[in-house]
Parts: sequence; C-alpha cells; structure tokens
Amino acid sequence: MIHSFEVIVRYAETDMMGIVHHSVYPIWAEAARTDLMKAMDYSYTEVEKSGIMLPVTEIRFIYKKPTFYEDIVTINCAVTHLDNRRLKLDYSVKNKEGEVCVIGYTKHLFMGVETRASMRIPSAVLDKFKSFYHPEFTQIP
Amino acid sequence: MIHSFEVIVRYAETDMMGIVHHSVYPIWAEAARTDLMKAMDYSYTEVEKSGIMLPVTEIRFIYKKPTFYEDIVTINCAVTHLDNRRLKLDYSVKNKEGEVCVIGYTKHLFMGVETRASMRIPSAVLDKFKSFYHPEFTQIP
Amino acid sequence: MIHSFEVIVRYAETDMMGIVHHSVYPIWAEAARTDLMKAMDYSYTEVEKSGIMLPVTEIRFIYKKPTFYEDIVTINCAVTHLDNRRLKLDYSVKNKEGEVCVIGYTKHLFMGVETRASMRIPSAVLDKFKSFYHPEFTQIP
Amino acid sequence: MIHSFEVIVRYAETDMMGIVHHSVYPIWAEAARTDLMKAMDYSYTEVEKSGIMLPVTEIRFIYKKPTFYEDIVTINCAVTHLDNRRLKLDYSVKNKEGEVCVIGYTKHLFMGVETRASMRIPSAVLDKFKSFYHPEFTQIP
Repeated sequence: MIHSFEVIVRYAETDMMGIVHHSVYPIWAEAARTDLMKAMDYSYTEVEKSGIMLPVTEIRFIYKKPTFYEDIVTINCAVTHLDNRRLKLDYSVKNKEGEVCVIGYTKHLFMGVETRASMRIPSAVLDKFKSFYHPEFTQIP
Repeated sequence: MIHSFEVIVRYAETDMMGIVHHSVYPIWAEAARTDLMKAMDYSYTEVEKSGIMLPVTEIRFIYKKPTFYEDIVTINCAVTHLDNRRLKLDYSVKNKEGEVCVIGYTKHLFMGVETRASMRIPSAVLDKFKSFYHPEFTQIP
Repeated sequence: MIHSFEVIVRYAETDMMGIVHHSVYPIWAEAARTDLMKAMDYSYTEVEKSGIMLPVTEIRFIYKKPTFYEDIVTINCAVTHLDNRRLKLDYSVKNKEGEVCVIGYTKHLFMGVETRASMRIPSAVLDKFKSFYHPEFTQIP
Repeated sequence: MIHSFEVIVRYAETDMMGIVHHSVYPIWAEAARTDLMKAMDYSYTEVEKSGIMLPVTEIRFIYKKPTFYEDIVTINCAVTHLDNRRLKLDYSVKNKEGEVCVIGYTKHLFMGVETRASMRIPSAVLDKFKSFYHPEFTQIP
C-alpha cells in the first residue's frame, strides 16, 4: 500500500520568498510517516514504548515546484527498503493540481531506547512494515 | 459561532522535556485562525490579495497542562474584540480527554499591504468577522 | 544586571510578509534565558541534571516593529519576579538602530524532574537568580 | 577558503528523543551559508535586492552522531560545485569535541526575482563565489 497524508500549509511555514521553506518538507514527511505507522496499527508512540527508536540516519529532498500558504498538499509515502536493522521510506509531495512539487526519502535505524545501539527489529514488527513495502515507489533512484 | 480546529501533534513539535514546546501553540492558533477565516468564506490568502494584512500585535498564552506527540488536539477560537482597525481572538486548546491545556489570545491590526500603515477595514469584511464575534469566549480576562 | 544576548535573523525565521514570524520571539527569548543562566554559572543543562525543570507557564509578547532577515538583534532580559516556586523574566528586543521592536515576558514554575510537581527551589539556586533580579526592567506592567 | 560558523543549540531545537531534531540541520546550514556570503562581501540580502534568488533545489544530510541542547556546534562549509546557473555547497557539523556529527550538501539555482526563471549569474558574482570554491571539501561523494 502507498500511504497518503494531507497537510494544509501554515503561515509560519512560509518564508520571505513567499513559498514554503525547504526545511518544512522533512517535518511533513515525518508527520506522514507517523500516520503510516498508525495505519499499520503500530503508532510510533507504541514503538518507543516497546523500547525501539527509529532515528533518522539520512534525508534527501529534491525541490521541483514551490507550495504556498493554505495549499492542501498530499504526501504519498511507502517503505522502499526494509531489513532487520534498517528502514527507508520515499515521499512524493503533490499540490492540489496533482503536480509533484517535492520528492525525497528518509533512512532510519532500529535502535534500542535503553542501549542507544543498533538492534534487530522483532519479526512481528517487521511484518507490519511489510504491508507498506513498495520498492517500486522509490522516488530518487 | 465558536470555531473548532484539530491538529495532530508532530514529533518535531516536541522538545527534550517530552512535551510540545511552548512556541508551537501560537503556530496552532494561527492555523486555527486561518481555518476560521476560511469558514467565514474569506481566506487569509484572499485578505492579502485584497490589499489587507493582519499582522500580530500581541500574543499571550497560559500553559496549564502539556500535550504530547500524536495527541489529537482541538483548538477552539472566536473573535473576542472587533472594531474598524483591530481584531482580537481567543483560543482554548484541549486534549482528547477534553482537558483545557492552554488558553490564550492574539491581537491584530488591519494594515494596508502597500502602505504598511494601519487602515480602516471595509464594512463588508467587518460583517464577515461578526459571525464569529463572541466576547464571552474571552479566555484571559 | 541586565543580560544582553545577540541573534542574527535566519532566513527560515521569516514569513511571506517578509518579516520575522511572531512565533520566533519566544524562541529567541528562550535562547537569551539560556545565556543568562550560563552567565550566572548555572546552565539550564545543569538545572535539569540537578532534578529541577523550569517549564513555561505563561508567555506574552507585544510587537511594535518588525525585524528582518540578517538583522543583528539584541535581546535584553532580566528576572522581574522571583520567589521560592516561581520565576518571571522580561525581554526587550532591539534592532541594530536601537529601536525597541518587541517586548515581552515569560513566567516559569520550578518543577521536579521526577515528580513533575511544583517544588521549592533550593536557596543556593535562588541566590544565583538574584544577581539578575531587576523588577524595574518590567516591560509590560 | 572553508567557511566556519558557530551555533549554540536552542532548547526549541531539541525533540523528545533528547537530541536536536533532524530538520534543524538544514536551517543551520542556511545560517552558515548566509554567513559565508556575508564573508565574501555579498550578503544574501544584497543578492535578492540585485534581482537574484538562490532557491534550494536539493538537500541531503547524513546523521552520524546527535548534538544536544547548549552544545556549541561548528558548521564548516564551502562551495563544491559552481557554474553559470548552479551552486552546490557542502557542510560538516562538528560538536565541541571535534567529532563530525552531520554531513550534507545543498544545491541551488540562480533565479531571477521578477521572472522566477533560471538565469545566468553575472560574472562579477561568480568571481565572489570562487574564493570559497573547494571541490575537495565534498562530504557526500
């Protein structure tokens, strides 16, 4: 499944160029990721309570078109890499006209909350992520 | 009418105390205000296009209880003062249990986009705001 | 002593009005507060390590003039109320021309990290804050 | 020349993991870029006044170690690609112990403020950037 999440652009998210500041897209991607995990019935709040963290190890975003204040923006995302220790999600941000404005990915490491070290993810958790695994959704090859 | 607007708390909005950072509430208030103006069929984007700006001249927020990552938070807001040149809105932020977590207000000046000076608001615009005028909603006397 | 702290306005801190967004001033006030506490040889990092938190219970800011990208901005601050359980600081934000652009205050509660309840502050800590206690610096009466 | 710029981590920049949120590093990179352009006697404010914008077309950051509240962080940056229409800068973020915490790059397009279209940069401007051109500073090959 590709997961779809909507945001309405906030005034505070714009900059003096009159467009959404580029640092906002990683925050929207994170909100979409939160929503994807809720959709797979494993909210990130639950993840952290079960002793697992998912820190970001890499982000990459390519900006094609700006988005503007009050725009209703759709973020599509899916898991594009998954193994016992690592996770990658790709994102596509579209404006109301359906134009792709921004694409990108984030990479994550499964890490123990206590140990703060890399850990193998339990297979039950891995299975949940698999329902959103779509390597063909990769936005930046 | 009291206007009601929902946000889902983003991870980036939390701080190392584990709660939503206090500077986030003015941003949520602004998003609720945007939504209120859309509901009165006069989006803030339209406002600025018609040559009127609504800069913030004062904010005040009182923090009673924290909100947390992934919480679904409701912001109620209404116009609590309105004249030809000035506008005040009050806000009440509730968590899912209906507890009031934060209250506050923002004050605004009607200002010409070109002149950057205070201006009298056209009466047609004033009328639109009147439908959300509820001085009894005042949160901080 | 009145404490003085400088920031250079970041591009990301501007909005589509071309000025610094109003939600940024509480963040600058916090950075000035951090610097004040470092100057009294009691960094906030130390505060939290010693089991004391200083959550914000109220903020109020009045906006007189905008500040702009790349401006060098001075935030003056001092303690304007202090007792065993509560703290208030006032702030004055000036641009390079020395014009007062924004004034405001923040109120804080001494709270135990473990108990998450209000606590009496140790007198040694109280003494440190006293060196920055200047009720006459109050910006908003 | 490699340009060096310091920031002190703000409380608002941390998240509930207790570390600086990953979306903050692009903002620090931008502040370092602003400072680099000031050092080459061509502030970005001047750039925009002369009718040239430098929108971000791509960002990429790799996170190796966290940074924490109150840390004094050094951002080194240099121009790693430069032609008539495009600019790339690389960044290295170090903590006080000199450990590399985050590396990354940003790509930019020279764009006309009026036309909002890609433009050739004047050679006088190009020359200014050349003093910070160090392709060997590339952090992510």
